[in-house]
Amino acid sequence: MALREQTHTMQALTTREGQLHLRQDEPVPALQPGQALLRIRRAGLCHTDLELVRGYMGFSGILGHEFVADVVEGSRQWLGRRVVGEINVACGTCDMCRHDIPSQCRNRTTVGIDRHPGAFAEYLALDERCLHAIPDHVSDDAAVFVEPLAAALHVLEAVHIVPGDRVVLVGAGKLGLLIAQVVAAIGANLTVIARQEKTQRLLQRWGIPVAQWEDLPLAQADVVIESTGTPEGFEGAMNLVRPRGTLVMKSTFVGLTSANLTKAVIDEIALVGNRCGPFDAAIRLLVRGQIDTASLIDARYPFAEALTAFDKAQQRGILKVILDF
Amino acid sequence: MALREQTHTMQALTTREGQLHLRQDEPVPALQPGQALLRIRRAGLCHTDLELVRGYMGFSGILGHEFVADVVEGSRQWLGRRVVGEINVACGTCDMCRHDIPSQCRNRTTVGIDRHPGAFAEYLALDERCLHAIPDHVSDDAAVFVEPLAAALHVLEAVHIVPGDRVVLVGAGKLGLLIAQVVAAIGANLTVIARQEKTQRLLQRWGIPVAQWEDLPLAQADVVIESTGTPEGFEGAMNLVRPRGTLVMKSTFVGLTSANLTKAVIDEIALVGNRCGPFDAAIRLLVRGQIDTASLIDARYPFAEALTAFDKAQQRGILKVILDF
Repeated sequence: MALREQTHTMQALTTREGQLHLRQDEPVPALQPGQALLRIRRAGLCHTDLELVRGYMGFSGILGHEFVADVVEGSRQWLGRRVVGEINVACGTCDMCRHDIPSQCRNRTTVGIDRHPGAFAEYLALDERCLHAIPDHVSDDAAVFVEPLAAALHVLEAVHIVPGDRVVLVGAGKLGLLIAQVVAAIGANLTVIARQEKTQRLLQRWGIPVAQWEDLPLAQADVVIESTGTPEGFEGAMNLVRPRGTLVMKSTFVGLTSANLTKAVIDEIALVGNRCGPFDAAIRLLVRGQIDTASLIDARYPFAEALTAFDKAQQRGILKVILDF
Repeated sequence: MALREQTHTMQALTTREGQLHLRQDEPVPALQPGQALLRIRRAGLCHTDLELVRGYMGFSGILGHEFVADVVEGSRQWLGRRVVGEINVACGTCDMCRHDIPSQCRNRTTVGIDRHPGAFAEYLALDERCLHAIPDHVSDDAAVFVEPLAAALHVLEAVHIVPGDRVVLVGAGKLGLLIAQVVAAIGANLTVIARQEKTQRLLQRWGIPVAQWEDLPLAQADVVIESTGTPEGFEGAMNLVRPRGTLVMKSTFVGLTSANLTKAVIDEIALVGNRCGPFDAAIRLLVRGQIDTASLIDARYPFAEALTAFDKAQQRGILKVILDF
């Protein structure tokens, strides 16, 4: 409590109408019932953050949804613990919540994305039901990857990929390289389409075959995972998936996409939208050291240089950019 | 054999470059190894036939894929039997065939749709592996519905619809009214969007609730079945399906469809393309008298009046048009 008396304002990175601002005098959030106050230790920039600045979701406010933090105010269960946080803040009472799918809560807000302040700030007030403790030997850097790693794992929740499956991943970005690792971990016959030399080297080091579009046979993959969010990526993915196969749509597309849905009908392809995943499983994988997150970090900046960090994250081929608080 | 010596030419309805022709002098097909010669008894017009005349699939040749026929030449197993025929003629050796999915055979031709003569002719030569015998007490009229009823049943093969599911069917045409009956049969909480008074009456007689778009709550249906093949139908269906729900795409769409795939990602909706289904199960339902096909027949013509029959089938609100041979 002493802490809050000393600090009534904080630094925070906000967006509004296409502009980014590093504010020095944002109020430290007041706690609502059930919330804990988190002091952010480290945060990661996601592609969605860049999209949000461009107007996606019509969001204005404090950005940021990949983070690790200390609980500085809250219930006895959480006070003093190092935590990460689910980004979907659920009502707990709607039909989706009752079916134990809080990430699809009808009344949810989403941290740093939709009507909820984000983690690019010194403090974040967050519903305690969103918190997950981070074991001591998982580093802050690794913990920042819990949210995107959970999203990557959700591919395995939504589609039953089996070890013999021929899987193609389209889009070897920050999220794609996590998806590649979790799909490779089950022994699937995975190939990743990757153009950048750096990502090709990473994939090769992990023992995952790399290919270009023209290398791959058409209509042969049991599962194609689309993680580019571009119409070209979607069309290419559709051409790779076999009849009765599955195309996992892992990236949001900006605007309407012209899709050859007749091909999906004739070839009886399932297109499966896929979003947030299980934090607990992501933490288990990090505890076991099974996922290489360190190689995905391309730059780090103190929070005071967050605007520079955003510029860096927009450069072609840059993977994860970390903010240190 | 005597028969073939008498009839070297036959009447056949063909399409070529957007024109329909009732030819009097098509050659009776010569049999390839493994084929039987079928004398068509009765045939049905499908929406796909109308699309094919408009250029879908670039098809030219004899139309027709819904039929019942007598085997007049062929192996001892089939000779003299009354049969219907699968429309996908499979190679038996490709990967899809080896996985027992002949309807997705890599090398298939499709009767009356893709590089295979159809059934709007006095005779059709068809691979015996495509044949299914029709029990005596199933009428010719009912047997004509085996192919579309199998397609309707494939919804239940592709998506596990359970009795408690809220299901909405969009598109109460010829195929939709068969889908409605098979989905209602499992006890699902089905509502059908139907505008025409005649189809509304049919659905009410079958005990299936009818609704208009504006009556239905958004994002509440566990499964939405889209059977209009229009962009508007697809968009409406997307608005009705709940988060983590399933949209079954039952109709081919002409050209590219502008689809809000970002909604599919965020709401984690599965879009499932769905085409041909199990003939044996369709025949079982007809044997048991569980499907009302008679009410779906709106007109019948002798084959000599096939051009008039096509005109009739194109009229708004007309369900099945039958050709008698």
